[in-house]
Amino acid sequence: MKLYKRSSKKAGLSPGTLVHIGEKKTEEVNISMMDYDASQIQEKDAATVGECLPFKEKPTVTWINVSGIHDITVIEEFGKDFNIHPLLLEDIVHSDQRPKLEDYEDYLFLVLRMLRYDEAKEELQSEQISLILGPNFVNSFQEREGDVFDPVRVRIKNAKGRIKKMGCDYLAYALIDSIVDNYFLVLEKYGEKIEILQEEVLSHPTPDTLQVIHETKRDMIFLRKSVWPLREAINALQRGESSLVTDDVSVYLRDVYDHTIQVIDTIETFRDMISGTLDVYLSSVSNKMNEVMKVLTIIATIFIPLTFIAGIYGMNFKYMPELEWHWAYPVLWTVIIVLGVLMLISFKRKKWL
Amino acid sequence: MKLYKRSSKKAGLSPGTLVHIGEKKTEEVNISMMDYDASQIQEKDAATVGECLPFKEKPTVTWINVSGIHDITVIEEFGKDFNIHPLLLEDIVHSDQRPKLEDYEDYLFLVLRMLRYDEAKEELQSEQISLILGPNFVNSFQEREGDVFDPVRVRIKNAKGRIKKMGCDYLAYALIDSIVDNYFLVLEKYGEKIEILQEEVLSHPTPDTLQVIHETKRDMIFLRKSVWPLREAINALQRGESSLVTDDVSVYLRDVYDHTIQVIDTIETFRDMISGTLDVYLSSVSNKMNEVMKVLTIIATIFIPLTFIAGIYGMNFKYMPELEWHWAYPVLWTVIIVLGVLMLISFKRKKWL
Amino acid sequence: MKLYKRSSKKAGLSPGTLVHIGEKKTEEVNISMMDYDASQIQEKDAATVGECLPFKEKPTVTWINVSGIHDITVIEEFGKDFNIHPLLLEDIVHSDQRPKLEDYEDYLFLVLRMLRYDEAKEELQSEQISLILGPNFVNSFQEREGDVFDPVRVRIKNAKGRIKKMGCDYLAYALIDSIVDNYFLVLEKYGEKIEILQEEVLSHPTPDTLQVIHETKRDMIFLRKSVWPLREAINALQRGESSLVTDDVSVYLRDVYDHTIQVIDTIETFRDMISGTLDVYLSSVSNKMNEVMKVLTIIATIFIPLTFIAGIYGMNFKYMPELEWHWAYPVLWTVIIVLGVLMLISFKRKKWL
Amino acid sequence: MKLYKRSSKKAGLSPGTLVHIGEKKTEEVNISMMDYDASQIQEKDAATVGECLPFKEKPTVTWINVSGIHDITVIEEFGKDFNIHPLLLEDIVHSDQRPKLEDYEDYLFLVLRMLRYDEAKEELQSEQISLILGPNFVNSFQEREGDVFDPVRVRIKNAKGRIKKMGCDYLAYALIDSIVDNYFLVLEKYGEKIEILQEEVLSHPTPDTLQVIHETKRDMIFLRKSVWPLREAINALQRGESSLVTDDVSVYLRDVYDHTIQVIDTIETFRDMISGTLDVYLSSVSNKMNEVMKVLTIIATIFIPLTFIAGIYGMNFKYMPELEWHWAYPVLWTVIIVLGVLMLISFKRKKWL
Amino acid sequence: MKLYKRSSKKAGLSPGTLVHIGEKKTEEVNISMMDYDASQIQEKDAATVGECLPFKEKPTVTWINVSGIHDITVIEEFGKDFNIHPLLLEDIVHSDQRPKLEDYEDYLFLVLRMLRYDEAKEELQSEQISLILGPNFVNSFQEREGDVFDPVRVRIKNAKGRIKKMGCDYLAYALIDSIVDNYFLVLEKYGEKIEILQEEVLSHPTPDTLQVIHETKRDMIFLRKSVWPLREAINALQRGESSLVTDDVSVYLRDVYDHTIQVIDTIETFRDMISGTLDVYLSSVSNKMNEVMKVLTIIATIFIPLTFIAGIYGMNFKYMPELEWHWAYPVLWTVIIVLGVLMLISFKRKKWL
Repeated sequence: MKLYKRSSKKAGLSPGTLVHIGEKKTEEVNISMMDYDASQIQEKDAATVGECLPFKEKPTVTWINVSGIHDITVIEEFGKDFNIHPLLLEDIVHSDQRPKLEDYEDYLFLVLRMLRYDEAKEELQSEQISLILGPNFVNSFQEREGDVFDPVRVRIKNAKGRIKKMGCDYLAYALIDSIVDNYFLVLEKYGEKIEILQEEVLSHPTPDTLQVIHETKRDMIFLRKSVWPLREAINALQRGESSLVTDDVSVYLRDVYDHTIQVIDTIETFRDMISGTLDVYLSSVSNKMNEVMKVLTIIATIFIPLTFIAGIYGMNFKYMPELEWHWAYPVLWTVIIVLGVLMLISFKRKKWL
Repeated sequence: MKLYKRSSKKAGLSPGTLVHIGEKKTEEVNISMMDYDASQIQEKDAATVGECLPFKEKPTVTWINVSGIHDITVIEEFGKDFNIHPLLLEDIVHSDQRPKLEDYEDYLFLVLRMLRYDEAKEELQSEQISLILGPNFVNSFQEREGDVFDPVRVRIKNAKGRIKKMGCDYLAYALIDSIVDNYFLVLEKYGEKIEILQEEVLSHPTPDTLQVIHETKRDMIFLRKSVWPLREAINALQRGESSLVTDDVSVYLRDVYDHTIQVIDTIETFRDMISGTLDVYLSSVSNKMNEVMKVLTIIATIFIPLTFIAGIYGMNFKYMPELEWHWAYPVLWTVIIVLGVLMLISFKRKKWL
Repeated sequence: MKLYKRSSKKAGLSPGTLVHIGEKKTEEVNISMMDYDASQIQEKDAATVGECLPFKEKPTVTWINVSGIHDITVIEEFGKDFNIHPLLLEDIVHSDQRPKLEDYEDYLFLVLRMLRYDEAKEELQSEQISLILGPNFVNSFQEREGDVFDPVRVRIKNAKGRIKKMGCDYLAYALIDSIVDNYFLVLEKYGEKIEILQEEVLSHPTPDTLQVIHETKRDMIFLRKSVWPLREAINALQRGESSLVTDDVSVYLRDVYDHTIQVIDTIETFRDMISGTLDVYLSSVSNKMNEVMKVLTIIATIFIPLTFIAGIYGMNFKYMPELEWHWAYPVLWTVIIVLGVLMLISFKRKKWL
Repeated sequence: MKLYKRSSKKAGLSPGTLVHIGEKKTEEVNISMMDYDASQIQEKDAATVGECLPFKEKPTVTWINVSGIHDITVIEEFGKDFNIHPLLLEDIVHSDQRPKLEDYEDYLFLVLRMLRYDEAKEELQSEQISLILGPNFVNSFQEREGDVFDPVRVRIKNAKGRIKKMGCDYLAYALIDSIVDNYFLVLEKYGEKIEILQEEVLSHPTPDTLQVIHETKRDMIFLRKSVWPLREAINALQRGESSLVTDDVSVYLRDVYDHTIQVIDTIETFRDMISGTLDVYLSSVSNKMNEVMKVLTIIATIFIPLTFIAGIYGMNFKYMPELEWHWAYPVLWTVIIVLGVLMLISFKRKKWL
Repeated sequence: MKLYKRSSKKAGLSPGTLVHIGEKKTEEVNISMMDYDASQIQEKDAATVGECLPFKEKPTVTWINVSGIHDITVIEEFGKDFNIHPLLLEDIVHSDQRPKLEDYEDYLFLVLRMLRYDEAKEELQSEQISLILGPNFVNSFQEREGDVFDPVRVRIKNAKGRIKKMGCDYLAYALIDSIVDNYFLVLEKYGEKIEILQEEVLSHPTPDTLQVIHETKRDMIFLRKSVWPLREAINALQRGESSLVTDDVSVYLRDVYDHTIQVIDTIETFRDMISGTLDVYLSSVSNKMNEVMKVLTIIATIFIPLTFIAGIYGMNFKYMPELEWHWAYPVLWTVIIVLGVLMLISFKRKKWL
């Protein structure tokens, strides 16, 4: 996962010029449409945006979902058909936006990040979702096929819950809600990862553990960056200053807002926990180090003087009276053993053993 | 104690769908009711919420306490009977809420965390308490049997203090107050723990001490997370914007607010103290290390050169004039002793000894 | 000095129930009264609060000072006589309040902390002072005999300065001012302590120095906790929203406010300085360590190879041609000396010496 | 790159006295002018500001760009001709301004920093750009020739995009936009640098790596200092309090504002990443250290006792019974090998190997 | 330089009692006066404040500068003559004020700190400047002779620039401006110091370097403390809420405000740079340490086993077959050399060399 994207391509271009920034994550662009009200529902996989246009003006809820944002012509056509500000189109194709809400009076524009934890590659994946909420349409743009919106689709088709009876603002809420709910899934993965790390750090810390700690720390930075500004955006949406959001839905948005705060809270807690884990790691490594040092010191401190004594009586001087003494050798052994024991006792006293 | 809960179960569900999130902490759901005014009191252990319904409309204070939130049907029935918003019900059964106050106009909804320090397991336990304050009823939901509300019950039964003469808002205050007061008990345990740690760190620090320091630090993170948002919630309650809270009770809530700030203050102080303890621990470990190093260095520095000298005269060269000298051996001893003493003196000067 | 107090005694009690929390710092409760206006003065050591009651209604300034707050009956009597809110009485006897201002309309309630540095025990002592400012009375409550109010008493008796000509608000100001002025005395002690530490850390750091550094750091945490909220309280007082504080006195309170900020500023500076001192300590300890390590390495690096050479020629092989050579021994010495000197030069180059 | 400039030259001078502060980055002052509206365009390389004066009053958009600010006389002439406040002129020639917006009612004054990453010298270069936005003119001042405005010039000449149809405020926006867009280019360089650092730190960290980490850290401090205040300035511009900025352009400025926040966000992320890299560096260095220490300890711990044993039997005592035993030598070898193996096993158990 | 002053002298005194706090920095008190308007100028060295009184009421600008604040009688006389509030007089003589602005309606009171870097003593010196801005007079108080106001004096005498044509507020501005401009000079010294430190730290770090780093860090704390509150004070002045400051001068004050922010910015940058320098120092010291450790380990690891081998063949066992072998000695040398080379190769592989 990259913490920044190469956005230099756009430097120097006229504002509103569409250039796709980010990885091309899918080959084909897919346009799918759902049009419903309390009594009926219509689904369509459209080849062009134009096919969906007739539904736009109808009072029913029209949800157009575009997967793949690298094809500039699709976005441009869409912009013309729905009369969208060129700067907004630019934001859709620049897939490095931070979450934000922009009020263009006729429609609201919300950018979010959809997160996924890829278990195979053990990495966090992030995708930009752009939502446009108009008077009777909702447009969503994603970087690739595959999303977290399936439960919403099922609820619409089965006419389960409130969703079919309510307007576009509720649909937008449902989409936002499913993205935010999905954050909890991602956090759960990290929760497990951190728990494993905490155990590993105590039982058998290795330099790899350290590596994982630092990676998790970096992922948390990224998560925080993706969710923190969302809080402000959803709060602005929920305050209901735009006439596009009804009071009824505002209560639901307050709920999403609470969830966002909970996600941020959990991220902060995880950061604190990772810092704690890092501290424990460093302390336990330095504890091992101390233990090693102590052993070295004790062995060296005991044997270096003894070796010196042995060295002395290995000298070849002609006149060394001790060498001739009959009991010299056993006496020397006694001296050596006594010395060694004394040193061991003194280490015990200094609590080195 | 877990710092986060597995809340992934709810991802993708229609908002307002009740799914219990959190551990199932009790088997049976208990519903108990107290209905009182200044002149009378009635108590009841109800099997269903329905049994309590007749009291709801009476002008007396009706307190319904539900222990156990895992049984969705109970909560749903309750929601229908009391005409409660589905999102609120969802918050009750998701036991990982952060403290918050929500104003639903007809009633207020307050989430708090009840804390307990389990001395046997030496761990902090946390339970979600949800309070609904209506015009003449108070509902409380807890995750399991056993709470800190007994003194309140006693005061109601004995008609002691103000409580029987006052309304629902005072009862809600009394419940909040008993939860916040209980925080002081928990903090006291940690206060003692930290004092013991501080002594231990100075007298005989072990890697276990470090472990306990880190655990206490983590508990403080959790405590902070549980209490910090409560401050804002109680402040909102106390500002008395809702007509459900009378001015009279507002003064009492200001008092609880003060206590909450005091709790937060103490948590911050404890965090600072634990950091200080950690610093002392690390310094004292590194001091020991230095002492060990010095001993090693002194022993090695004195004996390595002396051993070299002994080694020289242990060589077997045929023509080594010193070996033949009569006073060579005693002279050598003298040299060795003088050298050793000189080195000791120079260490003294360098303040190594 | 304790950073927290055992306040668990009050948990579960009806609010307004008086229980003394904190150490019992004095045996007897002393009640002293001063009643004065510009023309006269009356002093009294009262046995009960009741004795002071007649003066309460008079338009003169009545200052009642109570030393000792552990005797609940005194406080209760006082509460009845002066018609004081029970929550306020609770705050007086719970001696672990953080500084705060509360406006009860008929009177203002201010809590402060009086600090003292006990030079004998080398510790910071803290006492809670509660002030009630009514229309023509000021009540002060302290935990024990002995305070910093003597200069105020002298000024009243000698009719020196403005004090006798002005009202209760000025008296309250004078009391607050003398407490805040006293903070400077305490800070001065710490200033001296830190200066001594800074010198010690450079000249001869010991583990004890570290201990004192950590203690001073902890005291600063406590000081900050005692003074920081006072700033807000005095600011609220000075804004003059209460009719009990005249504009005239407001100017003086702004001055106390400035002093409080200055105290906080100095505490922050002290914290920074102590951190700096700790850094210097750790660096100087690690510098010493490095020096020790270098000596060890140099000695070992020089003599270990030389000892090896000596060891070689101490072997007892039958056919070792060098042993027979006539100049072998002096040649070996030459080699050893040359090797030693070469190593010394290489260390010099690497700046180890 | 310097993090501060020598601005002492101006100390003591009368305010509004023009003294150039900063490096003289170009020799000659170049004045170029573009005058256009939707239908026509005129370009001119002027020798003096005076030559551009006739265009100033015309309703067309007049853009005067001055490269080189060290020639005080040019700036002074310009000030007189355009009736500019002396303090503004002072700000132009003091090239150490932080980004800011100042509203002089008749015109707006904006200071920005243009950044460039010099790949040859591997350093960040910074240049002050001053923009004056009047009713029908825009003046830009840069420290040297060469800028990021060429795309804007091309768009004006080719009448591409909106620019020729719109007023001065749009031109000012286009200039700001091209500067902010250029920040992304600079950030991209640092992104690459940090990625390389992260790999290097894991594979083969050297003290040079550390040096580069610290330099990058310092550059981030500088970047932050250059961009952070710009956020506030553009926000003030975008709020459209001045009549010089039309609502139409305000939407575009909001877009630039978003980009600025994105730049700041990325800088913060980079700072976090560099801190992480530093941590990894330090850990990996200390890991290597530990490995070295372990090897030393293991070798020393095994051979020091063995050498002692060999030393014992190298002694020359006359009566050492073992020396005479026939199997002594092979027995000794057995003892030595067993001892060595035992020690290796115990190290394995302690996880040192 | 002291980071705090002994202000205990004032504790317990009646507010408004003048006691000089701070060092007595000059012997004599000097009172000098300048009285001017656009057409004339009068200068005077007064012995007493009284001599200046006649000028006070004149509509001309009267600037009275008092050097030396330890003589209480002078300040008291001045207070009476100009009808100044006693608390303000107290602030003048307590030379440990933090910068602040106080509005006494009839006059404004501003406290600043004048800084000087004493190159001889290599220390930062700080002096309190108190400014009183009345309707037609400006009074300045400094702790000693010698200030940064000379350029202002010259401009008044030579009628250079705007100063003689404008009122008291412009004079006050000019004085503030010259003090703030002087901060840049001080910062420049520190900029140079830090640059030298950065080079030193890379080329030859010594414990003295560390000492200088810590001193510079401490000076930055002091600088910050002196300038940070000034920002707020000048901002308050510039907002022009007082009628004593005209709109015309407000623009100039905005300029000083910008400079103050620039100074604060630079101080923050310097703090970051010093932290960076400290980090580099610590890393480079620890790098050296590692290098030392490696050398020790390599030497010891190579020679300790070899010495053991030599020790073995220095034993005096009677039956050691190797000793008799003819090629034993050269074979042994071969073994030793091969072993040594192998170890060197393994170190190379582990990148220790």
